[in-house]
Amino acid sequence: MSEVSATVAVDLMGGDRAPDVVVEGVGSALAADPGLHVLLVGPEHALVAAAGFERCTPVPAHEVITMDEHPANAVRSKKDSSIVVGARLVREGRAGGFFSAGNTGACMAAATLVVGRLRGVERPALAAVIPTGERPTVLLDVGANADVRPEMLLQFGHMGAAYARITLGVASPRVGLLNIGEEPTKGSMLAQEAYALLTEGLPGFVGNVEGRDVTSGTVDVIVTDGFTGNVTLKVLEGLSRQLLSEIKAALTSSTINKLAAAVVQPSLVALKERLDPDVYGGAPLLGVNGVCMIGHGSSSARAIASGVATTAKAVRGGLTEAIAVAIREPGGDAV
Amino acid sequence: MSEVSATVAVDLMGGDRAPDVVVEGVGSALAADPGLHVLLVGPEHALVAAAGFERCTPVPAHEVITMDEHPANAVRSKKDSSIVVGARLVREGRAGGFFSAGNTGACMAAATLVVGRLRGVERPALAAVIPTGERPTVLLDVGANADVRPEMLLQFGHMGAAYARITLGVASPRVGLLNIGEEPTKGSMLAQEAYALLTEGLPGFVGNVEGRDVTSGTVDVIVTDGFTGNVTLKVLEGLSRQLLSEIKAALTSSTINKLAAAVVQPSLVALKERLDPDVYGGAPLLGVNGVCMIGHGSSSARAIASGVATTAKAVRGGLTEAIAVAIREPGGDAV
Repeated sequence: MSEVSATVAVDLMGGDRAPDVVVEGVGSALAADPGLHVLLVGPEHALVAAAGFERCTPVPAHEVITMDEHPANAVRSKKDSSIVVGARLVREGRAGGFFSAGNTGACMAAATLVVGRLRGVERPALAAVIPTGERPTVLLDVGANADVRPEMLLQFGHMGAAYARITLGVASPRVGLLNIGEEPTKGSMLAQEAYALLTEGLPGFVGNVEGRDVTSGTVDVIVTDGFTGNVTLKVLEGLSRQLLSEIKAALTSSTINKLAAAVVQPSLVALKERLDPDVYGGAPLLGVNGVCMIGHGSSSARAIASGVATTAKAVRGGLTEAIAVAIREPGGDAV
Repeated sequence: MSEVSATVAVDLMGGDRAPDVVVEGVGSALAADPGLHVLLVGPEHALVAAAGFERCTPVPAHEVITMDEHPANAVRSKKDSSIVVGARLVREGRAGGFFSAGNTGACMAAATLVVGRLRGVERPALAAVIPTGERPTVLLDVGANADVRPEMLLQFGHMGAAYARITLGVASPRVGLLNIGEEPTKGSMLAQEAYALLTEGLPGFVGNVEGRDVTSGTVDVIVTDGFTGNVTLKVLEGLSRQLLSEIKAALTSSTINKLAAAVVQPSLVALKERLDPDVYGGAPLLGVNGVCMIGHGSSSARAIASGVATTAKAVRGGLTEAIAVAIREPGGDAV
């Protein structure tokens, strides 16, 4: 949504319904943002579908990494895959960011191996934007690092705060540590040590938060290890799906309920829309030398458009530079 | 619901609305179960309210541990509190089990310090029964042990399976390990080592499950460390509360919606009832030498009644003996 230019490489072959929904999503993103340039990466026969788009440059890549391939092996062996070529465009500076709704592990591997870590970053982290009642909350790590050290959680705090500032527009993000009690002495050894480091090193740190705060909007950023974060994300997905299907079943269990359901339907659709993670456009891998955004494999065209738009926003906002500064000069990032 | 007798000690002062809801809950439990005997523990002035109940013996305890006291300190210093006296009744064999909706940490401390661990149990674990679409799932540990070793997760598997068999009537419980991927090589070091131990040592072990399986009814028991389990439980609580309030707001956002909502209301109430953790009656602390069940601080009279009934069921089913056998003779518990 800006005249300031931003170039985003997009994986044409990413997601369960690629390339069709990717073409549609890219078309929407380009139409909505006159400053956006897309480098569309995929096999030549599929690139034809996007031939009519303005500000869209086809970049041929002849291999495809499928959803169930071993991530690191696939990235090493398929140098001409859409994921590896897309990551290379970022490394070479031809694109400021890369978006893919493909194999999450392969995208993370390509971001780490091809784009490369930012200097000083111990481990890149995958973040998810959780819709809450109020404004959304950035949760990280959600799966890149199953085992972490306290120092890594401090870095996650800096990276998540930068992401909330730049893509969600939160001037001074409040950062919480996911724990199983509010007091500093609560929780695992990891959480207790991280609490001390975060108190010392992160200006926006507000203390421990608990599982119920993940969806309450209490804080803007929640840091945790990739094991707990991944479980949390999937618990949310599972329960949301279960509750919505239960509600649907309850509302259609009798004729009179069906009639009433038709009346309340618009409200429930609006609710579902508001809780829909699609609107926040994918999960960024933070801590690499360029913007790398990973969409859900089941992404709709709308989710793809949102993911590309969020990638462009992060590029324009200087996300990579902001994280580099925060890691290099911890303590100076809240100014 | 049995003529077989069972004696349960109940903390009259446990919970935010004690003693009133406790008296009411105990009354319901006694009325529903002619074989139940209750030892009601609390200050004499409060015991008067239950004077008319049959099969209810008052046991005076003159101190009360409040919800925000430090658990272990309170248990050590308040020897005449309702929690400590209730636990002592179990240790002395006067009651087969103890139920309290009081300070969770203090109940766990009393169960461990006063009732005592079963021989061979490394660490008792707190379990929660999660309502799912199909039959419920037992999740443990949900907070007793923030840091665990793989051997402890194997014991949690045995203890959770025994609980599912006896209180939920599952003949051969399927046990899953909470992890962030399905393959044995996925996840944290802890999860990978526990996977190997569970495969070797627990007949009902079916492999890794993910966060979304917590509410899907995929397995009967899910084992995890007390950090991840506690976060999971609170994420579920938080999201359920948020979604139900959002739905309520959506349904009452206009007059016509309000009219339609009145029609669908019974279905939503039925749904809420089915998902209500109250019906499964509290969280057992497994691995101690007697049945110890801890209710939510906000327990209703119905939740208290359910908690007392579940405690009686576990006493009658020989939960403590079943766990003792499973821990002493691992591998023999599924026969």
